Parts: sequence; C-alpha cells; structure tokens
Amino acid sequence: MTPMEKLERCFARISALNDAVGLLSWDRDVMMPAGAGERRASDLATLEGLRHALLTAEENAALLVEADPGDDPWRRANLAEMRRQHARAVAVPGRLVEALSEACSKAEMTWRAARQASDFAALRPALEEVLALTREQAVAIGEALDLSPYDALLDGFDPGMREATITPIFAVLAQNLPPLMQKILARQEGQSKSGHAGIAPYPLALQEKLGRTMMARVGFDTQCGRLDVSAHPFCGGAIRDVRITTRYDEMDFLPAFLGAMHETGHALYEQGLPKAWEAQPVGAARGMTLHESQSLLLEMQVTRSEAFAKFAAPLMQKLFGDNGDWKTETLHRQMTQVKAGFIRVDADEVTYPAHIIARYDLERAMIGGQLAVRDLPEAFNARIKELLGIDVPEDRLGCLQDIHWPLGLWGYFPCYALGALTAAQLYEAAGRAVPGLEAEIGTGNLAPLLGWLREKVHARASSVSTMRIIEDATGRPLGAEAYLAHIRRRYLDEVA
Amino acid sequence: MTPMEKLERCFARISALNDAVGLLSWDRDVMMPAGAGERRASDLATLEGLRHALLTAEENAALLVEADPGDDPWRRANLAEMRRQHARAVAVPGRLVEALSEACSKAEMTWRAARQASDFAALRPALEEVLALTREQAVAIGEALDLSPYDALLDGFDPGMREATITPIFAVLAQNLPPLMQKILARQEGQSKSGHAGIAPYPLALQEKLGRTMMARVGFDTQCGRLDVSAHPFCGGAIRDVRITTRYDEMDFLPAFLGAMHETGHALYEQGLPKAWEAQPVGAARGMTLHESQSLLLEMQVTRSEAFAKFAAPLMQKLFGDNGDWKTETLHRQMTQVKAGFIRVDADEVTYPAHIIARYDLERAMIGGQLAVRDLPEAFNARIKELLGIDVPEDRLGCLQDIHWPLGLWGYFPCYALGALTAAQLYEAAGRAVPGLEAEIGTGNLAPLLGWLREKVHARASSVSTMRIIEDATGRPLGAEAYLAHIRRRYLDEVA
Repeated sequence: MTPMEKLERCFARISALNDAVGLLSWDRDVMMPAGAGERRASDLATLEGLRHALLTAEENAALLVEADPGDDPWRRANLAEMRRQHARAVAVPGRLVEALSEACSKAEMTWRAARQASDFAALRPALEEVLALTREQAVAIGEALDLSPYDALLDGFDPGMREATITPIFAVLAQNLPPLMQKILARQEGQSKSGHAGIAPYPLALQEKLGRTMMARVGFDTQCGRLDVSAHPFCGGAIRDVRITTRYDEMDFLPAFLGAMHETGHALYEQGLPKAWEAQPVGAARGMTLHESQSLLLEMQVTRSEAFAKFAAPLMQKLFGDNGDWKTETLHRQMTQVKAGFIRVDADEVTYPAHIIARYDLERAMIGGQLAVRDLPEAFNARIKELLGIDVPEDRLGCLQDIHWPLGLWGYFPCYALGALTAAQLYEAAGRAVPGLEAEIGTGNLAPLLGWLREKVHARASSVSTMRIIEDATGRPLGAEAYLAHIRRRYLDEVA
Repeated sequence: MTPMEKLERCFARISALNDAVGLLSWDRDVMMPAGAGERRASDLATLEGLRHALLTAEENAALLVEADPGDDPWRRANLAEMRRQHARAVAVPGRLVEALSEACSKAEMTWRAARQASDFAALRPALEEVLALTREQAVAIGEALDLSPYDALLDGFDPGMREATITPIFAVLAQNLPPLMQKILARQEGQSKSGHAGIAPYPLALQEKLGRTMMARVGFDTQCGRLDVSAHPFCGGAIRDVRITTRYDEMDFLPAFLGAMHETGHALYEQGLPKAWEAQPVGAARGMTLHESQSLLLEMQVTRSEAFAKFAAPLMQKLFGDNGDWKTETLHRQMTQVKAGFIRVDADEVTYPAHIIARYDLERAMIGGQLAVRDLPEAFNARIKELLGIDVPEDRLGCLQDIHWPLGLWGYFPCYALGALTAAQLYEAAGRAVPGLEAEIGTGNLAPLLGWLREKVHARASSVSTMRIIEDATGRPLGAEAYLAHIRRRYLDEVA
C-alpha cells in the first residue's frame, strides 16, 4: 500500500466514526430515553477520542509528508485537507483538549441554569475559564498554521475564512442595515396586519404531511434520509442517511414548515456531495458558511418569496381543507414580517445580521483580550442598541441567550450572516444563469435551481475554497450587495 | 496508572464501541432509510475492526500478564474475562477474520435467494466455504484455549458451555419429548378449539398500548429503554438504553404481545446488570443461555401460564373494549396450543427443543467432518422425522430456514433449548423460594419474581460461570427435569 492509500484508509475509518457520532447524536435528540443521557455523553466523548487518536496516529505525520497524490486535483485537494486536519489536531496538546472539553461541559450546565435565572454572574467564572482555554487553543493552532488566534478559530468552522475578509463586509452591513430597517418598519407599520393563512389549530398530522410533501417537491431524497421531531430543528445523520428534524406548534404552522425547509436546504447540500469521495475529507461539505447558505437560500430566498407563496398557498388550501382560506398574499406577508427583537434565533432576515455583527465584534474583542468577560453584558447591550435600536431589559434576552460561547464555539457566529449573504449572491446568480427561474418556482418546480446548485456548489465539496466556489458560481467575491439588493427589493419594492 | 487501570480504560473504550454498534444496528433495523444499507454495513464493519484493534493492541498482552486485580472477586473475574476475550481475539489471524467476514456476507446474500427458491444447491458452495473457515477458526481458538473445536465455538456465545454438558441433557430430551408430544397432541385433539380471545381486527394502537402496559407492569424501565417495530423482534441498544422491538398483525394480537414479552425478558436482564461494572467485561450478561432463559422465563413460564391469563384477560377486555369477549380460559388455551411444525421460530415450547437437538447434532457432525454439506438436507429431514414425526416437503421448510449457519453462527443453536431448560429450572426454584409466587402473578404483581431474578441471576453478571449461577439459584446443576415436569404439568395435568 502506498502512503496515499494508507492515508485514504485511515480517513475512511475516521469517516465511519463520523457517521457513528452523527447517528448517535441524532438519536440522543430524537429517540433516546432520558435515563441514557449521561452514558450517551460518555460514549460520544469516547468516539471523539478514538477519532482524534486515529487522526494523530504516529505514522500519519510521516505519511502526510511522503504521500504523492499524483496529478488528480481531487486527490491533491484531499491530501491538503488531510494535512490541514492533522495539523490542527496535533497543534493542541492532549491536556488542553481534555481541559477544554471538561470546562465546556461544566459551562454548558451552568449556562442552562444561569440563562433561566437571567444571572450572568453565575455563568461568569465558567465562561472565563472556557475563554482562557479557547484562547490558548487558538494561539496553539494559530502558531501551527501561521494564523492569528481568531483566524485559527474561524478556520475550524470555515476553512479559509479570515477576519480580514469578514470585517469590511460586516462594516457595509452595519452601515446600511439600521436605516434600511427603520424604513421597512415604517412601511410595514402602515400596512394591514390582519389575517392569517388558514385558521388555527393546524392538525399536526397535516403539518407533517405538508413538510414531507414540500421536502420531496424540492428534491430531498427520502431513500437516503428522514424527517423527525426534536426540540430544536437540525440536520445531522450520516453519509447516505441525512436526517433533519423540525418541531410542531398546533397554533402556528409556520415554524415547523420553515424549519423543515431550512433543514432541507442543509440536507440537499449533503445529498448532493460527490459519491466517489464521500468517505474522504475532500468529499465533505466545504464549511459552515456554504452550509448555512444552502439552508438560507431555500428558506429565505425561495420559500419566503412571492413566487413560492403562489405555488404553496393553493397546495396548503387543498391539504388543510377545513382550516379556512389560504391566500398567496396573506401567506407571503406572514413570511416577511420584520421586527427588531431580542432573540437571534427568532429574528427575520432583515434584522438577523445585526445580531451576528454584535457577537462577531464582541467575541473578537474577548479573544483579543480587549474585552473582559465581566464587561460583556454592558458591551452586548450597547451594541444591540446601536444596531437594532432596542434596550435589552435582562441578560436572558441578551448575552445569555446563546449556547455557543459556553460550549466553546468561538468564531462560529459569523457563518450565519455570511451564509445569508452567500445565499442572496448565489440566488441572484442562479436567476441570471437559469432563464425563467422564478416562474418555475411559482409552479413548484425547483429542479432547475437545484440543478444549478448541484453543479456550482454541492458537487465541488471541499475540492476548492469557500471563496473560490462563491466567486466561480457568481462571478465575483463574496459581498453584501446582493443581500442588500434583495432586502430592498423584497421589503421596499426598490429595484436597483 | 497501574496495568489493571490501563486495561479497565481500554475495555471501557471497547464498551463505548459496543454501544455504538448496538445503536447503529438497532437503527438499521428500525429507522434507517433503505438507501443507507450498504454504507451502514461498511460503518459497522469498521467499528468492529476498531474494536478488534483495541482488544488486540500490542501492549495488552503484557498488561494482561502484569495486571494485579487484588482480592476483590469482581475485579479478579473482570481480569479473567479480559484474558478470555483477548485470547480468543488474538488466536484468529487477521486474514482469517477478514476471509470469514467476507464469506459470511456472501453466504447470507446467497441464502436469502436460495431460501426463497428452496434451492439448497444454490447455497451449497457458499456454505461450504463458511464451514471450512469456521472450522479453521474453531481449531485456532481451540488450540489457544485448550478446547475441542466445537467447544471453542460454544464458548464464544456461552462462556464455559461444553459439549460434554449438553449432550447428556439433550439425550434425555430426545428420549422423553417424542412420546410426550404424541400424548399432548392426542389430548388437545379431543379438546374444543373454538373461540378466540377478543374478535379481530385488533387495532394496532391498542395492541401497542397492551404491550407497553404489560412491559411497564413486569418491570421494564422506560427511562432506560424503548419499544419499537421491526421485521423481526429483537432486544438490542446500549448500556442504560435497552431497545426492544416487536411486530404487529391486525388479525392476531398474540404474536406482537408474546414478542414484546419475550424481548422484555431479555431487557429486564440487561436492565438488572450491576451499574458499577456496566462498562467492563465482568458487568455484561453472562451468555446466551442465561439470556434466553430470561426471555423464555417471562414468555413461556409466566405469560403463557394460567395465573397470568387470569390477570391479563380482564385487562385486555378493558383495553380492547369493543373487541368481543376475553375469557381467561380461551386466552390461556390460545397460548398453549401444541403442533408439530416445520419452522423453528414458530414452534411451541413442547416441540421447540426437537428443532434444536436436530441442529445441534448436525452442526457438530459438520464441524467434526463426519457430515458433508452436500448431505445436509437428507440428514436434516431424517432427524426431524425422528424427533417430530413429520416429513419436510422442501428445504425452504427444512435446512434452509435459518440464517445462523450461513452467517457463521455455529455453536449458537444449543442456547435456545438450554435457555428453555434453565427457565423452567429457575422458575421452579423461584416458586420454592418465594411464597405465593403464582398467586401474585395472578394479580399482575411480578415484583417478587423479578426481585428474585435480580438477585440470583441479573446482579451476578459475568462474575461467575453460567453453570455456577444456575446451581446457586436452583440448588442443582442444569438438567431437563424441571422443563419436563413443567410440560407434564401444564399440558397433561400430571403433577410429579
């Protein structure tokens, strides 16, 4: 066996552990009886440990130097990904991995109670410990990869993503969004708000049928995936077995429906990755920005569009039958309400980026040492006031709302907003490339759009960088323009 | 870390892989979308390979020699189990493990088609290959553990079980069962067969409710387990997460109900194992004979008893309401019908052992080289005729019915019959030890019985041998007497 073949075998084994972790995590959130929680956490930690051991096995260092990938660009990219993953893994000493994992477990538990009680002081010591260890980890990886500490963190979720790319883009958003938001709010203030599509309660069985019908319609392969229920919607599972979840509210059909569409966007990406490389690093989804772009493209660009409402409203009318009237206009209006609120995950597409920009600025300052954890609540509330114009009344609705920082996920937040921008830019490019795209969506035909995404995004997997995929697909580097144009068009009828 | 601690850490990791294999297998049979089948098989093979690699890691040989378990009998038994598992694993060369795994996969696929077509010739070459490799494996393990080849196979499913123990017990059965069966059949011939408990169809939702109600009643901990549906009922899952399945037939409630009770028996054993040792070899269930004894004790000894019918019939009447009359007598009669049939898994408790004795004799002869695969159908049919008095009309109903041999599970069959004997002997001993046991069961109170089983069987896990557990619990070595007495009492009203 050549060094390259040995490495491919090693990473194929790692991919089986990835599948096991994916399925056991799905099971934990969807199926597991409550009494198994502690044991499941320990099982998952052991599997992660075995994965780390396989990745950092002594012989790999030499194999990664010796391996000759030949001329095939995919094999070359695969070796580069192997080297990147290996370099990140060996950069962090074992005792730091363990300390961080323990600190995050502790902080997560503390956070659950602290958020409920809106008591930031209770979380502070645990969060300080996580921050200190995360910074240590970021410095170690940064030194190994020649990156700044914050870039080292970004790179873990979104390979190749850099602060220098994000900051100017977010600056454009921070400048343009607040006035735009005020204009939209003023305009919606004057519009009729009466009327809902259909009449509550919406039977759960029919809501589920709606979700399944729509999933299949937009191209979800039910032979290689499932839809289930969990407390928080997610997309997970394993290779050839992509599992999405949503949650139902009998009084409102929209959260379950939009949740299912959002996760279906993630699932279509996973299902569109090239089969030939499915068990190798180069065959994986490129990173969190592109992943989020696929879910937001389906949820925000497609599902909340007027064209889609035109197709969806009659279908819903037929499905729900006795549940009142389903008008295209009402449905579309319900899906495009804007409101400056406190909670990130409940935010609409216009106000959402502000939540992210605030967190991006604050986490960089904390990693960089310019902002102390004890000063976080005040800084958080000030930034939210600047960007959204609202006063956070308590930390439960402010810096305590998200699990990311206690869980050690620093550098993760930007991908949510970058995903929204990417979605807008991709959808705009698809509209140029595919004649009659919107008309097709209006008839419920998403095949042309999916075909374009398959070719331009999904099929490329991790063979090139995120930025290269975006540029090749849209003809220009990632920016905020397409997103801002989309917002102006959808919410203010302004056409550039 | 001492050598003993290092070994305990290694086996704790192995137990996490066991959990992953258990849950991914459950998922395959209960949840998995069809398109994921091939990938799941490959994932499971990789996890098995990782488990084997952990068990046979180079340092383990020395650690197993050096380790000092001290005076604690559980720790000493744990080390002995580790040594046994390690010795079995290292005895078989890697190329043989792979060849056997491949041959079994091929034979299993061939078997599915061959059984459907009732075409033994189609299976023969694949089965010959599996047999040759299994024999090679048995010889290798036998040499390492100083066992005969067949004992080496038995020992893999039921540590400590030997041919020399089984043969005389089965001889007693083979001598006593055929005349007993004839007597019972003649007696049941003269009895009324009219009437069923309730009236079909039995709504699936109510059948499921019946299963769940009964499971909880007999002590299944729903906080640490689940009930689901699969094509073939089984008990699997992971530590603190025991998952059983059954299957429903709207026209007959008995298969689902008895299936659920049988698997609940397995589950109670798993749930009764000592928590302190749950991740170590000594903390696992002792072997397949005791496992099968627990499922059969609940299904055969308890659920099909007249006392249980007295408790169950009114409960069913209440649950099914509109589905006709539920009489204790009818219900009990339905659960104790005897018939000499071809299919092992459909057999009643009277005719079941005959199916096993036939397979035991034949597989020993094949492993020993006295019987060639090409002569199997004829030999199989002859033995069934001797023991059950019926003529097998085609191999689909004869030697092609079971998956065990194609799958490489030689030496597994005996545990089914030994489990039935053990169940009878344990239940008899419980009746002596717990005053009013049957009366309690008649009121639906299984706590006294479960308490006794917990102490005498479950809590001992793998700390001593199967035979020792049986002897300590019942006061004598395993034999056929209690089983034969049970059959005579239940089916012929003969009291010893």
